[in-house]
Amino acid sequence: MPHLRLLMIGDVVGRPGRELLLHLLKPLREELQADFVVVNAENAAGGIGITPALATEMLEAGADVLTLGNHAWGKRDIYPMLDTEARLLRPANYPPLVPGRGWGIYPTQKAPVGVLVLQGRTFMDPVDDPFRTADDLLTLLRSQTSIILVDFHAEATSEKQALGWHLDGKVGAVIGTHTHVQTADERILPKGSAYLTDVGMTGPIDSIIGMDCNVVLERFRTLLPVRMEVAEGPAQLSGVLVELDTETGRAHRIHRIQRPEYIHQRGDS
Amino acid sequence: MPHLRLLMIGDVVGRPGRELLLHLLKPLREELQADFVVVNAENAAGGIGITPALATEMLEAGADVLTLGNHAWGKRDIYPMLDTEARLLRPANYPPLVPGRGWGIYPTQKAPVGVLVLQGRTFMDPVDDPFRTADDLLTLLRSQTSIILVDFHAEATSEKQALGWHLDGKVGAVIGTHTHVQTADERILPKGSAYLTDVGMTGPIDSIIGMDCNVVLERFRTLLPVRMEVAEGPAQLSGVLVELDTETGRAHRIHRIQRPEYIHQRGDS
Amino acid sequence: MPHLRLLMIGDVVGRPGRELLLHLLKPLREELQADFVVVNAENAAGGIGITPALATEMLEAGADVLTLGNHAWGKRDIYPMLDTEARLLRPANYPPLVPGRGWGIYPTQKAPVGVLVLQGRTFMDPVDDPFRTADDLLTLLRSQTSIILVDFHAEATSEKQALGWHLDGKVGAVIGTHTHVQTADERILPKGSAYLTDVGMTGPIDSIIGMDCNVVLERFRTLLPVRMEVAEGPAQLSGVLVELDTETGRAHRIHRIQRPEYIHQRGDS
Amino acid sequence: MPHLRLLMIGDVVGRPGRELLLHLLKPLREELQADFVVVNAENAAGGIGITPALATEMLEAGADVLTLGNHAWGKRDIYPMLDTEARLLRPANYPPLVPGRGWGIYPTQKAPVGVLVLQGRTFMDPVDDPFRTADDLLTLLRSQTSIILVDFHAEATSEKQALGWHLDGKVGAVIGTHTHVQTADERILPKGSAYLTDVGMTGPIDSIIGMDCNVVLERFRTLLPVRMEVAEGPAQLSGVLVELDTETGRAHRIHRIQRPEYIHQRGDS
Ligand SMILES: [Fe+2]
Ligand SMILES: [Fe+2]
Ligand SMILES: [Fe+2]
Ligand SMILES: [Fe+2]
Ligand SMILES: [Fe+2]
Ligand SMILES: [Fe+2]
Ligand SMILES: [Fe+2]
Ligand SMILES: [Fe+2]
Repeated sequence: MPHLRLLMIGDVVGRPGRELLLHLLKPLREELQADFVVVNAENAAGGIGITPALATEMLEAGADVLTLGNHAWGKRDIYPMLDTEARLLRPANYPPLVPGRGWGIYPTQKAPVGVLVLQGRTFMDPVDDPFRTADDLLTLLRSQTSIILVDFHAEATSEKQALGWHLDGKVGAVIGTHTHVQTADERILPKGSAYLTDVGMTGPIDSIIGMDCNVVLERFRTLLPVRMEVAEGPAQLSGVLVELDTETGRAHRIHRIQRPEYIHQRGDS
Repeated sequence: MPHLRLLMIGDVVGRPGRELLLHLLKPLREELQADFVVVNAENAAGGIGITPALATEMLEAGADVLTLGNHAWGKRDIYPMLDTEARLLRPANYPPLVPGRGWGIYPTQKAPVGVLVLQGRTFMDPVDDPFRTADDLLTLLRSQTSIILVDFHAEATSEKQALGWHLDGKVGAVIGTHTHVQTADERILPKGSAYLTDVGMTGPIDSIIGMDCNVVLERFRTLLPVRMEVAEGPAQLSGVLVELDTETGRAHRIHRIQRPEYIHQRGDS
Repeated sequence: MPHLRLLMIGDVVGRPGRELLLHLLKPLREELQADFVVVNAENAAGGIGITPALATEMLEAGADVLTLGNHAWGKRDIYPMLDTEARLLRPANYPPLVPGRGWGIYPTQKAPVGVLVLQGRTFMDPVDDPFRTADDLLTLLRSQTSIILVDFHAEATSEKQALGWHLDGKVGAVIGTHTHVQTADERILPKGSAYLTDVGMTGPIDSIIGMDCNVVLERFRTLLPVRMEVAEGPAQLSGVLVELDTETGRAHRIHRIQRPEYIHQRGDS
Repeated sequence: MPHLRLLMIGDVVGRPGRELLLHLLKPLREELQADFVVVNAENAAGGIGITPALATEMLEAGADVLTLGNHAWGKRDIYPMLDTEARLLRPANYPPLVPGRGWGIYPTQKAPVGVLVLQGRTFMDPVDDPFRTADDLLTLLRSQTSIILVDFHAEATSEKQALGWHLDGKVGAVIGTHTHVQTADERILPKGSAYLTDVGMTGPIDSIIGMDCNVVLERFRTLLPVRMEVAEGPAQLSGVLVELDTETGRAHRIHRIQRPEYIHQRGDS
């Protein structure tokens, strides 16, 4: 049975995240025998947004597709590239007329891979309905390929699990991003879609979701506006590997990844 | 070096969650050699709130303390018991005059254990500042014991990590609840506090955070008010074991637990 | 120049609101020489929703159209009537498949009147984009009549004013509902649309937006869930009269109404 | 019976708002025989925040006290002045350690006047409980004067009316700010406190709450981040005059003000 291995890597945050990504991308691809690598890059530039130079750098380093979320719009100089670079995707369910697109189909040696990015609405901006947008676009995507990965960029666990169940059997994987914390609920749903609530971030570990602890703590303690800064120090890459049947598009394995593992942080055992 | 082992079990949802808890509590306690068991029970009664009968049942089954979160107030007939049962805690940072209390100190064979419940405010009701409430109450708690567990019932990963860093070195563990999805970021922070963003729920796995998929999906698809119902089917217990030094109160081990593991759901490997 | 006079009456709250409406509807219609009367009735039944009996009563008492907002769905037994009664409108920008419709065209002795109900999204549920929904439906409505009233059921003053400017010149009036407090910013925008941020409620004055003060205050002071109740005591009707040119559909007069005025409550002058 | 006349002027927005304020402040004071003038100035500097130069200018032009709201923190160079200028107030219910203070008592020829600024929490940042903060600070203020004005900077009509009823009989007036739209519900509550849900803004009328229509509309239509700009064109001053008994502190008159009135915008009548 022919397989295809998708590697999805979570939100790359700032320089520490980028450097670790560039360092690990090739060896990880080889080790995991990944056929296709999707990287969420919405926090690449200083924690908010991405620039054309950074996008180019990550694509050249081996990312097959870069996805973005609510921070897609953080740096305005990326807007033209959103319209021209087919491997750079923002959430599909923004209003029409915003730059860019939210899905694409990409050739691999085994089979074409469809990628769809959607954004949630619970505790977030009122973008278009992700459930209906998914239904509409998957009709289109599924007519062209049976291998489909959905990056669901959302805050609430309920909305993420809801989309997982809604799409079960219609896509190969629904992988959450945005919270920057990897969840431990990876599974294959009954009709064959791999699911993970959040893949987690790729960024500095001694941080608050990638940002400097003191700055974020000042915000929580005072409620004053503060200028967020990416934290420094050692980083961790968070990802998930999904193995799909190339004929049916169904997942038969999902496996979480953290590199390095920093196991010592969990204590002597 | 004398150790104390704390087991924290996440939000017990409805009958499937309760039955699994009652079934696993004793064997798990023995297997893990847990000295003290804290169970978040805010979703015990039909998914929202808890009743005196259910609280009594769980305490008699071996839970040392029951914690509650934003759903503490879901069933009014628990209000009197909040005032009389010292082993039943609601978040400490509600306004004065609401029933109950948010912390307690409990004897064990090794050392007294302090438990503090706090609730977050990001994407939640505007309760009192959890950071300042923690500072105030920990002054009190730390004068009586060096073993302290904080249940931080909150939505946003940023707020949870922020409280973790804020309390690092002042408590033995900061364990998140409320999202019903276990996170994979367990660690011991530099000054010795064990930390986990969310311990996850104890409830039916084929569900949306414990509730019936069809009902929740109808809510997301239509935005109409719906009456939530607990899902049926097999359940999973989510927990975390923290091992603390009884003299310093510092954690030297944190270990996530899912029972049963349903490893097959992650696919053949 | 032939004129048409539209009277819009704001959210009728509970029995005190209904009784005042029934009492004032006919004399007010006569006094103001209103050709068409629209009544927002989303709070008619106990403050939340409406029943078929109450809807029928208000229509028989002289309301030409009843509009609803986010509380349209408060009482399930109204759902069938939403599908069958063309004079009962819920916001148009809910997802497809929910009961009812959000617009209609109604004959008068002078000209057909179009009514469109939209709901905002700022601080509210993520319904479909009211700006695009307005654009789509107004193409349809404007092909059939030049007299159009929009009831914009929304919370934020910014979103309401934004829709006013967005629709200026395309409709006769954009009248806000939902906050239950009449605003004093009535005007005719440069291209001819009458605008008022909120028309205010029709309900008991010694209240918090129509509900019992003690109950609402208990909610704010304790954050506990409480069962809202409609307040008792004297009521006030809030409305707005818009005079439109039947040929162009442009407004040439907008006038706020409060009955009775309770001028004494503003002090001796 | 000796009276004191308080004039409260709503959120001054940008240059158009400032210029109108400076132009009208003296003649209005004279015309209305105002003994004390409070001006909300949180939007004075480009629509967000205030600078020391602008604060000084408004105080020298005749404002007795300047109040601020959630935008108090928009321009960092005002922070030192918040600590040194007793006539510049930010909301009192921010966490301790933020700059400035939220209340003051000011001499007039007739009696000392207390001013207290509070901020709401519904749809806003989770500042400290405004109800409890009011109770605490009013104990202090009422021991020093019987003439007290509360500027309640809040979004939701329910929260504003709730504080009005909560403070009825304890202060001379509860005047809302923040929504930038004047409401028409001015009244004197049963125990003697004057109340108005929102006094409205002082700024450009062809705008969306003071900001450029095109920019705000772009934000609503695209959900992209945009840089807000103050609108241009003619401005309107919004205020409210409250007449209080200097002995009891009770209000016996409340009167809304809009200057100029732009009555023509309401149509020929
Ligand atoms: Fe992110
Ligand atoms: Fe994000
Ligand atoms: Fe829960
Ligand atoms: Fe909860
Ligand atoms: Fe309403
Ligand atoms: Fe409403
Ligand atoms: Fe303002
Ligand atoms: Fe404000």
